[in-house]
Amino acid sequence: MTTGNGPAPSATPAAGRLRTLGPAECFDLLGPDGIGRIGFASAAGIVMLPVNFAVTGKTIVFRTAADTLLALYANGLVSFEADCFDEVTRGGWSVLVLGHAHRVTAEREVRQLEDRTDLQPWAGGARDVYVRITPTQITGRRVGD
Amino acid sequence: MTTGNGPAPSATPAAGRLRTLGPAECFDLLGPDGIGRIGFASAAGIVMLPVNFAVTGKTIVFRTAADTLLALYANGLVSFEADCFDEVTRGGWSVLVLGHAHRVTAEREVRQLEDRTDLQPWAGGARDVYVRITPTQITGRRVGD
Repeated sequence: MTTGNGPAPSATPAAGRLRTLGPAECFDLLGPDGIGRIGFASAAGIVMLPVNFAVTGKTIVFRTAADTLLALYANGLVSFEADCFDEVTRGGWSVLVLGHAHRVTAEREVRQLEDRTDLQPWAGGARDVYVRITPTQITGRRVGD
Repeated sequence: MTTGNGPAPSATPAAGRLRTLGPAECFDLLGPDGIGRIGFASAAGIVMLPVNFAVTGKTIVFRTAADTLLALYANGLVSFEADCFDEVTRGGWSVLVLGHAHRVTAEREVRQLEDRTDLQPWAGGARDVYVRITPTQITGRRVGD
């Protein structure tokens, strides 16, 4: 199994195996919350910014402030990525979501999100804009274990 | 310092503070190697895929296989993101690089990269394509600590 580009000697027997994940498996890996990255196209190029997120009703939700790049651009087509890797076993997974983001403006929907998630932004200040991503495509892959 | 959207009670005093990082500080955080994500525009949307990377000579290098999406698209304008967060202190950093990616085809440059980095892809198979990203812009930010 070891090749010139293969796993380090300390790797597990499954090391190096790359397999694709189904949508249900991807959602299981994402939820209920974690840290991911929003990707969107800006005038300067593709921006990728980390957010702490929650999964609710097959959508991905995060909070930001009204004056951020995220609030400006994350209202349309976006991508979202989350992953988890173990440097010792050299294994882990990644999930990529393509979807539509929208700022949640309806008071009732904001209340629902406050009830159903425990989203506390790490950065201080008033980050009271909820953004919800509705996936149109979710793919993932696992390497190693 | 605590507000309605502020840090959890267990957070450190610095929690919530968001500050931008200079280019040198960003490079220090990235190097010498780690796990980051390449972002590029595909026909379907923005793709973000994790890679293990090395920093050498103010460029970012990773390896892939000749038949991957990465090899296909990572030959032009790309973005690259790396971050590190601590869920306990709710602090960490992220760095975003915009730059030009090119497949390294010159034999001499490949040998140099083999000598100067210890890039062993986690996924198995022949991942003998080196891709080098030359940054045009590097920005970063730190939250908390």
